Amino acid sequence: MTYTLVLLRHGESEWNAKNLFTGWVDVPLSEKGVEEARRGGQLLVDAGVLPDIVHTSLLRRAINTANLSLDVADRHWIPVKRDWRLNERHYGALQGKNKKEIRDEYGEEQFMQWRRSYDVPPPEIALGSQWSQDADPRYAGEPIPRSECLKDVLERALPYWDGAIVPDLKAGKTVLVAAHGNSLRAIIKHLDGVSDEAIAGLNVPTGIPLLYELDEDLKPTVPGGTYLDPEAAKAAIAAVANQGK
Amino acid sequence: MTYTLVLLRHGESEWNAKNLFTGWVDVPLSEKGVEEARRGGQLLVDAGVLPDIVHTSLLRRAINTANLSLDVADRHWIPVKRDWRLNERHYGALQGKNKKEIRDEYGEEQFMQWRRSYDVPPPEIALGSQWSQDADPRYAGEPIPRSECLKDVLERALPYWDGAIVPDLKAGKTVLVAAHGNSLRAIIKHLDGVSDEAIAGLNVPTGIPLLYELDEDLKPTVPGGTYLDPEAAKAAIAAVANQGK
Repeated sequence: MTYTLVLLRHGESEWNAKNLFTGWVDVPLSEKGVEEARRGGQLLVDAGVLPDIVHTSLLRRAINTANLSLDVADRHWIPVKRDWRLNERHYGALQGKNKKEIRDEYGEEQFMQWRRSYDVPPPEIALGSQWSQDADPRYAGEPIPRSECLKDVLERALPYWDGAIVPDLKAGKTVLVAAHGNSLRAIIKHLDGVSDEAIAGLNVPTGIPLLYELDEDLKPTVPGGTYLDPEAAKAAIAAVANQGK
Repeated sequence: MTYTLVLLRHGESEWNAKNLFTGWVDVPLSEKGVEEARRGGQLLVDAGVLPDIVHTSLLRRAINTANLSLDVADRHWIPVKRDWRLNERHYGALQGKNKKEIRDEYGEEQFMQWRRSYDVPPPEIALGSQWSQDADPRYAGEPIPRSECLKDVLERALPYWDGAIVPDLKAGKTVLVAAHGNSLRAIIKHLDGVSDEAIAGLNVPTGIPLLYELDEDLKPTVPGGTYLDPEAAKAAIAAVANQGK
């Protein structure tokens, strides 16, 4: 008896394409991102991996990636659950800023610490600022952050993993999680027991479903899971690592 | 204290455009239908009617109409519920057939009875036939029909209305129901107390949100509700009435 989990990072967004820190800013997929999402759906079909339920963040790049890929896979009709705890890492005051400009202004060391340190968050975003979500109705009444490091993402994503995703897996459902680079890294860190240091070097490519078969103790039968297009995943991981350069 | 309900019939599908009986066959929106869905979302924005939750059928033309319109309205993140009880009327053995050919073959009277009689369903579809859904995994274990008249649609849609939609309304939520000509006619018949005879003449245009404010007894404060683009609705209703001609 194994459980089947599929992790899917959204396709390229308009701000990925512009090299801006996005975080919780709710930007749309780029045309390339739309194509990536559709291709992700075709990869599910080709592998015969058909989700029974989908969990998404509250951000349209993940929601529309789920919608587009599931439509291609003829699974558009499955139940949907959404939660902000699957959102991308909140980039604090960096949201809306150009990655290259931040790097030039603050230097490589500070830049890499904000991008990749496990437990140092960027400066908090000002309430009411253009790229803040404090007045967004979708988060009303929720204890939302004003900046997050990856450790913070784990701390808010894992209660959702345990409380909402695991019960679906244990009910025998093939579960798709359509989310973001850092919320998926948080789940992967938990599943594969990746160390606080090693997680800095782990990137998740966009639009390529990552399949995990989990044993009774929810341990991956294949550590790191299996990308449904391993060659494309390898190339994309290398590209992500070059962001901001 | 009133409750706010929005009914939205999917935009034109590829089979609407081809003049085929569709029913439960899961055809995509046409390009025009995609545009109609987006415009429906803009009409919600313009009217300041922002859904808190959406209910859809299990058919992609309704699901994608909801997805597209809610994305335009910046409400893509709201909770979603889906149920086959909001599906289009099952057209039985007519599914996949050309409306004009059926009219030529069986005559105007039989054609109109199948299209518009309240309680005479078309012949049942054969199990395993090309346009049957008996092996479709989305309906596994459900008591699905092999043909339906409008009365049958009411009998399976109203338990969903009472059990799933009314509780959301009573919780104070603005509820969007993205569905089909006949499942929406069933709800409208119930809400407005339309007679079995008069319902034959009631058509719902595609892609134009129909707003109902309901009183404490769930009676419409404005009988028939209010289309968010009344002029376009009037023109579209006239066009629907000419289908099959």
